[in-house]
Amino acid sequence: MAKVKLTVAYDGTDFHGFSRQPGLRTVQGELEAAVCRICGTPYEVYGASRTDAGVHAKKQVAHIVLDERMQLPIERIGYALRMQMPRDIVVQDVSRVADQFHARHDAMRKVYRYFFATTRAPDVFRARYQMNVPVPLNDEAMRLGAVHLIGRHDFTSFCFAHAQQESKVRTLHSLEVVRVDEATLYLEVVGKSFLHNMVRILAGTLLEVGKGRIPPAQIQHILASRDRRAAGPTAPARGLTLWDIAYPSDCDAPVQELSS
Amino acid sequence: MAKVKLTVAYDGTDFHGFSRQPGLRTVQGELEAAVCRICGTPYEVYGASRTDAGVHAKKQVAHIVLDERMQLPIERIGYALRMQMPRDIVVQDVSRVADQFHARHDAMRKVYRYFFATTRAPDVFRARYQMNVPVPLNDEAMRLGAVHLIGRHDFTSFCFAHAQQESKVRTLHSLEVVRVDEATLYLEVVGKSFLHNMVRILAGTLLEVGKGRIPPAQIQHILASRDRRAAGPTAPARGLTLWDIAYPSDCDAPVQELSS
Repeated sequence: MAKVKLTVAYDGTDFHGFSRQPGLRTVQGELEAAVCRICGTPYEVYGASRTDAGVHAKKQVAHIVLDERMQLPIERIGYALRMQMPRDIVVQDVSRVADQFHARHDAMRKVYRYFFATTRAPDVFRARYQMNVPVPLNDEAMRLGAVHLIGRHDFTSFCFAHAQQESKVRTLHSLEVVRVDEATLYLEVVGKSFLHNMVRILAGTLLEVGKGRIPPAQIQHILASRDRRAAGPTAPARGLTLWDIAYPSDCDAPVQELSS
Repeated sequence: MAKVKLTVAYDGTDFHGFSRQPGLRTVQGELEAAVCRICGTPYEVYGASRTDAGVHAKKQVAHIVLDERMQLPIERIGYALRMQMPRDIVVQDVSRVADQFHARHDAMRKVYRYFFATTRAPDVFRARYQMNVPVPLNDEAMRLGAVHLIGRHDFTSFCFAHAQQESKVRTLHSLEVVRVDEATLYLEVVGKSFLHNMVRILAGTLLEVGKGRIPPAQIQHILASRDRRAAGPTAPARGLTLWDIAYPSDCDAPVQELSS
């Protein structure tokens, strides 16, 4: 038995999300098919974050539990997988990790960015990765609204109404509004875990604040109402990118000294 | 009669090139269809550069000759067109120009960039816009090779073998090899006009130089041979972007004072 950690990036546009679904093109499905092609037997690929259809990843992490059926040495799996992947998935790194490592359970912090194009003529080479909002956005108002969301709260108002998660309490470590240039602005949301559609509803609500339709101070009332209808619309998937996932240094480090 | 200049950008991936072709999705076809929808009658859109299938444009220029059938004021055509375009074409600017303006004939200088990703794990969000070359490239050797190509030459060796252009003599104003970062390198080629596939064959040949397969000094022999087979392969379309087109200031300036 050997545990292997994969770091992958993908353009989510042409995927029905991360999680395997019969008959649909998914990131997990493509990864598992490639692993199967290089070793001849199926292995499950466990992802840290089950990104929705259309959501991108600059850094997604997954693990595979290999056994003696894997003939390829671990140091060659990365190269072999890269040769197998379609252009919209890039396998960045493959490394041996401690047997206890679990991509999802051990994730300490996930970073998502939601990108807005804020000019009438957006960058066509970024159009797949951002929401086009051809009106000026008041990023200072968005920052004032965002402050109310940081910390531990019941985020029912910012959760897909039919979500299955029982507890709607989550902790936002940070929520920043960053203006890159005249044409681009993004939200950076950091937390350990999120509710269904939570980042996209946060983005859609702060967008209303940026447009002047919701005053920043109203965000605390939206939060307190615990009512999805009080918040803004769910911003489109294409603006959202899973940006980074952090692990405690002891379980994230490649373990070269262990033998299988 | 009123002449209008369009500045457009596009992601060429899903287009069969710029020029209209029956039954195929092209940039000219999409632009003409949108113009037809907003004014109810067909107008021809004349592009400055007929980019090939898969080639992108950060700045393409085109003109339209409008007549009394165009009911929309010129200052509203840009907005109306933007509302009509698919996400992979962005209409950046629409302006009135002098009646003698011609997008192709008046173009003084065209700038193309050819992008290479030079790491084993390229940026997935740039993968549609660059050629992935997962080996180190010697950019200094590429620069030494490029020097031989600058100036006025017979570029038969760097032209699609079955091209229809009679004279194969062209002038390269400049050809620079620019390293952006560890992962990215591009060629910037500047000239008034180019032969069929010329920039892609220049890129494919300098790539061989970068890989160490062709010595830089051999470029002058390749040029002198006037034989397409002496040069390297045609680099894939997706790495190429029409970056800019320059016009003499007198015919490029918006002409607001003229009435139609």
